[in-house]
Amino acid sequence: MLESVQVTKTSLQIAVVLFPRVTALDAIGPYEILQRLPGATVTFVGHQRGEVRTDNGFLGLSIDQTFEDEVAPDVVVVPGGIGSRALLEDEVALGWLRGAHRTTRFTTSVCTGSLILAAAGLLDGLTATTHWENLDDLAKLGAVPTSDRVVEHLDRRIVTAAGVSSGIDMALRLAELLTDRVTAQAMQLITEYDPQPPFDAGSPAAAGPEVVARAREIGLLKD
Amino acid sequence: MLESVQVTKTSLQIAVVLFPRVTALDAIGPYEILQRLPGATVTFVGHQRGEVRTDNGFLGLSIDQTFEDEVAPDVVVVPGGIGSRALLEDEVALGWLRGAHRTTRFTTSVCTGSLILAAAGLLDGLTATTHWENLDDLAKLGAVPTSDRVVEHLDRRIVTAAGVSSGIDMALRLAELLTDRVTAQAMQLITEYDPQPPFDAGSPAAAGPEVVARAREIGLLKD
Repeated sequence: MLESVQVTKTSLQIAVVLFPRVTALDAIGPYEILQRLPGATVTFVGHQRGEVRTDNGFLGLSIDQTFEDEVAPDVVVVPGGIGSRALLEDEVALGWLRGAHRTTRFTTSVCTGSLILAAAGLLDGLTATTHWENLDDLAKLGAVPTSDRVVEHLDRRIVTAAGVSSGIDMALRLAELLTDRVTAQAMQLITEYDPQPPFDAGSPAAAGPEVVARAREIGLLKD
Repeated sequence: MLESVQVTKTSLQIAVVLFPRVTALDAIGPYEILQRLPGATVTFVGHQRGEVRTDNGFLGLSIDQTFEDEVAPDVVVVPGGIGSRALLEDEVALGWLRGAHRTTRFTTSVCTGSLILAAAGLLDGLTATTHWENLDDLAKLGAVPTSDRVVEHLDRRIVTAAGVSSGIDMALRLAELLTDRVTAQAMQLITEYDPQPPFDAGSPAAAGPEVVARAREIGLLKD
């Protein structure tokens, strides 16, 4: 059984990409689930070691490994955020991503992180998802956008998640693929992921036009 | 109308407490919602400026303000994690929390952060929640534990949330209390919080004994 082989794996290297003006929850949602898998090591990777500030600048997150370091992560997570735009033409970052993808078990994204995967050529002709406000951008970069919350192409080792919080759902699925269902369920229990949002406004359809208008007014990404 | 007064408020100061071995998602879930509220400024507060590492050490988060700095935050968020234990007898941290609470609109916690609120004397005789593994610890500190996901005492300006991911649900409720329902719903839409976990294992009752046993074996907090 594939599962039993994976459970006994002693090392699981997970790389999470960081950049200035990243959306914190895009990165931290998957991190929180994946870091707890048996044998997991999570490393935050970016242009240079040290602090980057999140989208509105309120929080500093640390990069511990650079795109120049030799790594062969089993899993790559690319988050989104306003800063993701700068990576679309960043050949160092895109080159790192293409290189890492050659040997990953899963190359993944959350929110506008999928635009970066697309810019690296990893989503050509594939269905993929992103934040609901950015589905058209994804199409322009050669992917086939869908509004599903998690889109997986296991044969291509690519998994994309929709906006911000969807990375938690994606990571639970990755946990199952990387270990086994009971371990993945234990991750859900440990993080007490028993969602009880006080409203039903998590998608444009559920939220309705007034809330969509307010969201656009506030802006996903404050420039 | 209370709501219209709050919407026009130009400044909303939010303080999130950090400490070594904090659980990242406890802090980042509420941060991600609250940072986007109109007029919001989020500051990460701790013993000294600079980096602290999260529970397993994989991620550095930056403290930008110390417990010695003069502040009067409107909202305080106290996250949990293995490092929360050290704060239970930390008079500098507890003193800061008591002082801040005098003028907050809401003093809140996620996961074992409620143990810190209890240690500061803020939960005496009040119902409150925490991670499902720590309900007994909360009772020992003078609170009345409940397993509800979010417990609010608006007259006391205290809101506690259960384990790790529950801070997202709490923050959406806080968003409503701080602004108005449409703005809070816009936060849910912006973060695309339309949860679709692949399993139903987010509470001990739903998870069942095998998953609870695996969760305990893996451990919420790796020592």
